[in-house]
Amino acid sequence: MMRYFLTLAYRGAPFHGWQVQPGQVTVQGRLEEVLSVLVRQPVAVTGAGRTDAGVNARRMVAHIDMPDDYALKPNMLLRSANSMLGPDIAIYDIQPVAFDAHARFDATEREYRYFVTTRKNPFAMGMAWPAPPSLDFEAMNRAAALMLGIRDFTSFSKLHTDVKTNICDLRRAAWHPCPEREGMWYFEIAADRFLRNMVRAVVGTLVDVGRGKIPPQDVLRILDCKNRCSAGTSMPAEALFLWDVKY
Amino acid sequence: MMRYFLTLAYRGAPFHGWQVQPGQVTVQGRLEEVLSVLVRQPVAVTGAGRTDAGVNARRMVAHIDMPDDYALKPNMLLRSANSMLGPDIAIYDIQPVAFDAHARFDATEREYRYFVTTRKNPFAMGMAWPAPPSLDFEAMNRAAALMLGIRDFTSFSKLHTDVKTNICDLRRAAWHPCPEREGMWYFEIAADRFLRNMVRAVVGTLVDVGRGKIPPQDVLRILDCKNRCSAGTSMPAEALFLWDVKY
Repeated sequence: MMRYFLTLAYRGAPFHGWQVQPGQVTVQGRLEEVLSVLVRQPVAVTGAGRTDAGVNARRMVAHIDMPDDYALKPNMLLRSANSMLGPDIAIYDIQPVAFDAHARFDATEREYRYFVTTRKNPFAMGMAWPAPPSLDFEAMNRAAALMLGIRDFTSFSKLHTDVKTNICDLRRAAWHPCPEREGMWYFEIAADRFLRNMVRAVVGTLVDVGRGKIPPQDVLRILDCKNRCSAGTSMPAEALFLWDVKY
Repeated sequence: MMRYFLTLAYRGAPFHGWQVQPGQVTVQGRLEEVLSVLVRQPVAVTGAGRTDAGVNARRMVAHIDMPDDYALKPNMLLRSANSMLGPDIAIYDIQPVAFDAHARFDATEREYRYFVTTRKNPFAMGMAWPAPPSLDFEAMNRAAALMLGIRDFTSFSKLHTDVKTNICDLRRAAWHPCPEREGMWYFEIAADRFLRNMVRAVVGTLVDVGRGKIPPQDVLRILDCKNRCSAGTSMPAEALFLWDVKY
């Protein structure tokens, strides 16, 4: 068998998240379906992570194994897979890698972006959260900066998940205005790993700061609680993008 | 009566173009409907131009007249109109202007942008034309530069239109890569005025150049023909944006 890394993008709205689930249309499920037809044997797709229902990916990485004697060249497979996948998933690249390279375990950094718009925008169409115009981005950035570093993010994760530790190394967390898009902002957040629901809970808490409901330094108190209930509400999935994965 | 300039944006897909037409949902029709309800008397909306069915507007300007004693302040009207208009039209601004200011006759320049994507993009979703990856943008830019200046654009207009002259002053016409969006390009075109269907016919002709079907200098021959049949096919409306109007 030969191992390949796939680089891909997908819209979140049409899918019930990344991970295969019986009776649901998922990104992993669609990829495995299409690739198995093309390769003529079952193909398992391992992603760098699992995005929740509705979450978009601008750049996701996954690996697959294919038989050595597999006749189609990767570029042929790319073209055929893209035409079979429909408009909502695009594979950009299929590259051979070492047999033990792993899309999930070898990833050293994930970056997500969360988009908000402070004015009505007919082209944001469910891709940006409609934020109140008075949101205080300067206060939100002060709060975000306090969260940087190696910390326990239990307060920002879904309860009862099966991971062994809730410690993440948060490397970047800041709001930026979108260039040339009046009223649009995005939150860039990068870490070695993310817990389930973490980005949307962090953004929800920062929005509480931006609305003046809590002071910026409260995020430290919330982190210390190690209790999901103390953080802000989770934000809608549609405005969240897995932006990049680094190896 | 007081005259006001409206700045607005709209998605093209849900509408049968700008101009009111019996039995069709149009942008002008929706605006007149909503504003007439709010102002409690018929309000006529005059746009800087008429976009065809499916064409988007990032920034359109229009004028309306409202009675002097009209009770709602422009900012109140803005908020109420935006909530009644639904997600596909956004009014950004309502400003009082001189009684004889005219959204159409006083406009000195219109700019359109046409978007294409040379790779599959789940987020372009009918907002960018899927172009062949081999399109020669350098040749297209040479052809576009030849069209600049004050010229007769009959070859690029719909036949049998009711305008008196087909002469336009083409001031900018060039393809640019979209920053940070791999594979996406846009064609920027600005003139004092545009004829019906002109941008989409110009883009169609340039795409013929980019595909190597005609040499760049052929655009001069096509202009000289003054005959619509000599230009390339008109491109789909969904990737075209009225980008700006200047006064």
